[in-house]
Amino acid sequence: MYCIGLDYGTNSVRALVVNVRDGSEVAAFVYNYPSGENGIIVETTNHNLARQNPADYISGLETSVNQALKQAKENDTGFDATKVIAIGIDTTGSTPLPVDKDGIPLSFHEEFTNNPNAQAWLWKDHTSYAEAQQITELAKREHPEYLTRCGGVYSSEWFFSKLLHCINVDGEVFDAAYTWLECCDFIPAVLTSTKPDNIKRSRCAAGHKAMYSKQWGGLPSKNFLSKLNPRLGNLRDRLYEETYPIGDEAGTLCPEWASKLGLSPGIPVSVGAFDAHLGAVGSGAATGKMIKIIGTSTCDILISPLDKRLDNIPGICGIVEDSVLPGYYGLEAGQSAVGDIFNWFVNNLASGQTHEELTKKASTLKPGQSGLLALDWNNGNRTVLVDQRLTGLLIGQTLHTKADEVYRALIESTAFGALKIIERLEEYGVEVSEVINCGGISEKNSMLMQIYADVTGRQMKIAGSAQACALGSAIAASVAAGKNAGGYDSFEQAQAKICTLKQRTFTADPENHAIYKRLYRLYCQLHDSFGVRGNSSSLYNVMKQLLEIKESVSSK
Amino acid sequence: MYCIGLDYGTNSVRALVVNVRDGSEVAAFVYNYPSGENGIIVETTNHNLARQNPADYISGLETSVNQALKQAKENDTGFDATKVIAIGIDTTGSTPLPVDKDGIPLSFHEEFTNNPNAQAWLWKDHTSYAEAQQITELAKREHPEYLTRCGGVYSSEWFFSKLLHCINVDGEVFDAAYTWLECCDFIPAVLTSTKPDNIKRSRCAAGHKAMYSKQWGGLPSKNFLSKLNPRLGNLRDRLYEETYPIGDEAGTLCPEWASKLGLSPGIPVSVGAFDAHLGAVGSGAATGKMIKIIGTSTCDILISPLDKRLDNIPGICGIVEDSVLPGYYGLEAGQSAVGDIFNWFVNNLASGQTHEELTKKASTLKPGQSGLLALDWNNGNRTVLVDQRLTGLLIGQTLHTKADEVYRALIESTAFGALKIIERLEEYGVEVSEVINCGGISEKNSMLMQIYADVTGRQMKIAGSAQACALGSAIAASVAAGKNAGGYDSFEQAQAKICTLKQRTFTADPENHAIYKRLYRLYCQLHDSFGVRGNSSSLYNVMKQLLEIKESVSSK
Repeated sequence: MYCIGLDYGTNSVRALVVNVRDGSEVAAFVYNYPSGENGIIVETTNHNLARQNPADYISGLETSVNQALKQAKENDTGFDATKVIAIGIDTTGSTPLPVDKDGIPLSFHEEFTNNPNAQAWLWKDHTSYAEAQQITELAKREHPEYLTRCGGVYSSEWFFSKLLHCINVDGEVFDAAYTWLECCDFIPAVLTSTKPDNIKRSRCAAGHKAMYSKQWGGLPSKNFLSKLNPRLGNLRDRLYEETYPIGDEAGTLCPEWASKLGLSPGIPVSVGAFDAHLGAVGSGAATGKMIKIIGTSTCDILISPLDKRLDNIPGICGIVEDSVLPGYYGLEAGQSAVGDIFNWFVNNLASGQTHEELTKKASTLKPGQSGLLALDWNNGNRTVLVDQRLTGLLIGQTLHTKADEVYRALIESTAFGALKIIERLEEYGVEVSEVINCGGISEKNSMLMQIYADVTGRQMKIAGSAQACALGSAIAASVAAGKNAGGYDSFEQAQAKICTLKQRTFTADPENHAIYKRLYRLYCQLHDSFGVRGNSSSLYNVMKQLLEIKESVSSK
Repeated sequence: MYCIGLDYGTNSVRALVVNVRDGSEVAAFVYNYPSGENGIIVETTNHNLARQNPADYISGLETSVNQALKQAKENDTGFDATKVIAIGIDTTGSTPLPVDKDGIPLSFHEEFTNNPNAQAWLWKDHTSYAEAQQITELAKREHPEYLTRCGGVYSSEWFFSKLLHCINVDGEVFDAAYTWLECCDFIPAVLTSTKPDNIKRSRCAAGHKAMYSKQWGGLPSKNFLSKLNPRLGNLRDRLYEETYPIGDEAGTLCPEWASKLGLSPGIPVSVGAFDAHLGAVGSGAATGKMIKIIGTSTCDILISPLDKRLDNIPGICGIVEDSVLPGYYGLEAGQSAVGDIFNWFVNNLASGQTHEELTKKASTLKPGQSGLLALDWNNGNRTVLVDQRLTGLLIGQTLHTKADEVYRALIESTAFGALKIIERLEEYGVEVSEVINCGGISEKNSMLMQIYADVTGRQMKIAGSAQACALGSAIAASVAAGKNAGGYDSFEQAQAKICTLKQRTFTADPENHAIYKRLYRLYCQLHDSFGVRGNSSSLYNVMKQLLEIKESVSSK
């Protein structure tokens, strides 16, 4: 039997056909969104704006699934579209879009065509920074508990910031919307032809981006939202009370889409979730295992059993019941820049050397040999300091320092940042005995993986699938289908059959680990001095004041 | 009337013919030393070794003066060799060479030909690091006063370290030497045919490099030197008791050399001194004016009247009576790397961009605009921390930081380092009301000069002569000659006629200065935190421990 995993990314959607008996990936098709720049609607006058055309989601759905099914037939003689037993979905987020009472995106209405505010507000849209601040301030004052699970600061990338900004800049769109859907709720609703009031909203999206928790009765109170703006308060009645984990059935495939896709009507569609979370599922998320998705930034996903007491962990962005796997807290941490730092260095400071050249030279260096140490804060620090206003630091350079030495120091700095997160988690009782990495860097750069093992003193494994997110969606689908239909009754069972690891694992070299322990102590000293307010040996003000001066100069 | 200034550099000797009435430079000739690599004898097995062939000094003397005189005749119809009234000399230092009882270099003796230990030990020879440490330790224990005027640490580049090392590695050479001469004492002795016991030794060389001070009876005591090594103690009797400032007559030109050079016998030859000191004289050294010689590193020379009380200034490398100009304390400070830092950056990290390209882009930036701040310690810090074991630091980088922004931050860091020195001097009563710069960078890079003005809040001027050292030597010669012979009776008078400034001066922009004041406060915070032991917010250990780890790794 087969499941389809749909992975809605920033520039494209991927459909993956998985044989759920053994996890083999029989076919995949990637559809690049045709609108905007690589699928992103931008405005030259406003660099913060990033939207997507919901029509791309629909056309991508039809094309990617049809093409993947076609390939599956070619690749696998045993395959037949009738053997597809369920569909799972992951998307970027928070990527909300306004819809009408029937769940049709407002951008499909003639009066809103080409109005970016009626489109999907992509996760990386930063137009709502002022509203984010407003929300943070009100919450701090009146409902500090709302912020306890998102690191103390509500982000401009998140659901309510975007909605509030829409009220402020385009009230017409806001008022025309019956409700707003996260992209990961919109796609299941399309496939199952579900009206907004009946959509089973994603626990993952609600908990991590919309301050949703049963602890305080679901979404933030109407009173709270009304204080931000009465129209936002009114909208709450048309949002949701309940939310659902993946593997729950969002509904069944409607006849119209069954026909479009050549699939059987009535097969279950899983409740959706965010890509990183389903990437973790597809990489084998389990207690004690950190799933590290290494890209331009990193996202670290962990789970911890619901029946084990878990306090708020300072600096961890999200701790949400059932958000990754049902029965577990889902925890999300991450580093604001990893691959981005290496790319920045290569593009600006590496004297024309490529990643490959630098890596080749850097791998001949021993830990500590360059005398360099860096902080991995070129894009701020998400976990554990939750502070965007931090910047990079490099120390130890002499007149003989080479580019490849700096390159290695930058990689090491991200490893130290990763260890800092692991230590914070373990301090609060979340065990991290091994790390499963996924993402291109982990597959391509074995020097980096060895450094991560040597720095953290932990085994580094690599997820077997290069399409971990789509695979995770297929796993969610297989659970939504259940054993009787040829799927599984639990994620544990599904993962055991479907998830694999690459053969090569990286184990810490004791001698290197010992040196890195010494360097890590110095990293922590710099980390605390520059990153923690009010520390006794504090240089906390330095980075802040440099930014203040920069801004005061630039605004002139 | 004319004087000849001879400038013995690291790779060549320059003879400059100066009309002392108006300071016009009528002719110059540069003779490149033929021996070794660009005039430096090196050993592939010992990178610390750097020697010079004294024969190069002699052949260079004859050729450079003759060629310069020939050109002078061509360039200046009024010129005649009989109108040359005196010769002045500056050399590198400490560059001592062993000589026999007649003052002939041991390397001229057949048995020592090609023995590098019998040659001149060039200033940058670092073979004597262990002996330097031995001297420092003994002095700290028994005669701490010896170190008070050289920053608390006796260097491997200096006179006694080199002699002691010679005893340790080549006792035969040491025992064959009647005495040792600084290069700046050797050349006047050659020109005046003076035997070692009668040579008027340079106050500048003795005071700055041989722990010579009248305060403790001249050179370090025989007892002290004997404790280092009895043979060194014995040598003291064949060194010197008295020393002399420039402008004093070392002797008169001997008939033999008068004939070789086509000059009048009997004209005075000035007592020699080090190049940077005479560069300061040639640039217009006077009370309140700092002469900043900017090259790969910087040397800052100041003078302060002897009749004004001057305490030891912590971190200032040398405070020596009459060492620059008679009647004044000569003070020497400096930064271990300036041009070297910019070269390091361009050669290793600037993505193939040249100094010119980077400067062009960097000059469009406003102070503070990049958000970057650096410490100028890639080669340690000479003044005011006197600590070679410090390293570079860069802070504030983001994912958008460009190479030209870093380049500018590095230039600014050297300006902050320069201000630190100025403030230390002023704190101890040495006024620095303006700065006269010399050296290629100051002439070529007006952005750098403007940054120096904006950071220090002081006028930056540029010495008129591109040959400030040779010009200073010619000025010393003119004073040695005296007014009656067509020269001058004082340096003040000579400098007034001879020294000029380039037309362009750089004045601080008040707005930029205000921003740099804010940045400088942050620089000081980093400076004290990383550079000063036991500071309350100390990260003093970080750079040290990185070096320790580096060394422990590299030694494996």
